[in-house]
Amino acid sequence: MGIDPVYERLPPTIRGDNSSNELLSRVEAVERFCRGVLDAVAPHVPCVKIQSACFERYLWHGVELYHRLVQQARALDLIVIGDAKRGDVGFSSEHYAAGCLGDQTFGGFADLEGPDAITVNSYMGIDAIEPFISLASSQGKGLFVLVRTSNPGSDAVQSLKLDDGRNVCDAVAEMVSDTGGTPGLVGASGYSLLGAVVGATKREDIVRLRRIMPKQIFLVPGYGPQGANADDMRGCFNDDGAGAIISASRSVLYASEKTPGGWLKAVAQAAADLNQQIRSILV
Amino acid sequence: MGIDPVYERLPPTIRGDNSSNELLSRVEAVERFCRGVLDAVAPHVPCVKIQSACFERYLWHGVELYHRLVQQARALDLIVIGDAKRGDVGFSSEHYAAGCLGDQTFGGFADLEGPDAITVNSYMGIDAIEPFISLASSQGKGLFVLVRTSNPGSDAVQSLKLDDGRNVCDAVAEMVSDTGGTPGLVGASGYSLLGAVVGATKREDIVRLRRIMPKQIFLVPGYGPQGANADDMRGCFNDDGAGAIISASRSVLYASEKTPGGWLKAVAQAAADLNQQIRSILV
Repeated sequence: MGIDPVYERLPPTIRGDNSSNELLSRVEAVERFCRGVLDAVAPHVPCVKIQSACFERYLWHGVELYHRLVQQARALDLIVIGDAKRGDVGFSSEHYAAGCLGDQTFGGFADLEGPDAITVNSYMGIDAIEPFISLASSQGKGLFVLVRTSNPGSDAVQSLKLDDGRNVCDAVAEMVSDTGGTPGLVGASGYSLLGAVVGATKREDIVRLRRIMPKQIFLVPGYGPQGANADDMRGCFNDDGAGAIISASRSVLYASEKTPGGWLKAVAQAAADLNQQIRSILV
Repeated sequence: MGIDPVYERLPPTIRGDNSSNELLSRVEAVERFCRGVLDAVAPHVPCVKIQSACFERYLWHGVELYHRLVQQARALDLIVIGDAKRGDVGFSSEHYAAGCLGDQTFGGFADLEGPDAITVNSYMGIDAIEPFISLASSQGKGLFVLVRTSNPGSDAVQSLKLDDGRNVCDAVAEMVSDTGGTPGLVGASGYSLLGAVVGATKREDIVRLRRIMPKQIFLVPGYGPQGANADDMRGCFNDDGAGAIISASRSVLYASEKTPGGWLKAVAQAAADLNQQIRSILV
């Protein structure tokens, strides 16, 4: 499930009173909320995707909180995906990989673990992603490359038709499949450490992209409120019933808006429901 | 000029001795270096591009330093571009815009100004960039959208040939030109708040992209060590001699590696030389 906390939608009891330092009091409220959510959903979901933007919004205080939540989620045995969508070239990519994905080795921070995987952007090509792959490979981590995103406007770039009949996202998918299929990047499971983001709303593309990228784990945002239902998700999985992580955020995070009773109970129930919905398409 | 500090290349006198907290002592060294550089180059260059990755590498401590340097650069009357290459959709883009570009309004942080502009990614289309445009428009700031990046591997995506004869980067350039040309986004100068990143190394594309995007200010990285010379840069400017920001980083930052004498003197001299080189192509 996605951890994308927006202060204005937190349960009123969590928001609390604003102290004189509005930013810090919001960070504290977001922390109370997220810590409760992680504990509540850990028994029901295998993996959380933490949206970096929601924390960077609170400057360095938010970034520190983000890292604290990564530690908590890992301690709860959740697989942690940092949804950072980073992308740069050369040594800047190395720096992003070290800061956003890596386990730290610096004295004073040697206990700080990075997430298990992060999302990265594809527009700059594979050499921009290579430093992330190097780090992921050496530390047993993974990546999800943006191939097809769930927002309507993405078509203007990702669905552009090439002169050989492919779409732009097909070409990006082939790039990810080729690089990700390199020996050493594919594990015993048959899946590559180089995965792909494929939006749940792009039904017409999912089956084709699955064919182009058989060894990629798909990270599939947009389930639920963004418009996709469980049946639409079938094409994201391989025939073995594996290969996709379906992510929902708001329908779980803010379940208490629609459900009477305590907010933590509502979140736990929504996570259990999400689990059931995804399982139902795998039988 | 670009502020992309890499600890290993800092002058030995700046690096100092590592305390028991290696990360914090590196942050302190990077801060000493960058503060000196900003003071040294401010008389010679109009604008600095601060590479977020080099600071995020040091977790929240680096992010805090990044913001301190933005304040210093603004106080020196430099135009400040945050090279953050952010990109996401919907409310996540809003959060990135507020955290990475906006002047803060939160109690306790109301004095903290964001950079004048940031770089953003184009792969997710214009709706992903709209929240950045909204904030830039309301706060008098700007954006540079990645259109054509300077790294070799970018060709595999940005130079893909479309069925109508254009390249992918041409289509992205048209998207930027169309949206950026909207009334209200173009200032009295005739330039749009929506600019474009166009790599200095892509000589064969620069002239065409300038034609597609007459109202975009080009942010042009890759001058100097990455292989482009001053003559190559001519096509980035409009006929009025305006419209482009040519950025060099390493050739100025690490000028002392090749020049005897104090490192600050070498940096100031390299910045003055850079200024002269760029001016020489505008006559």
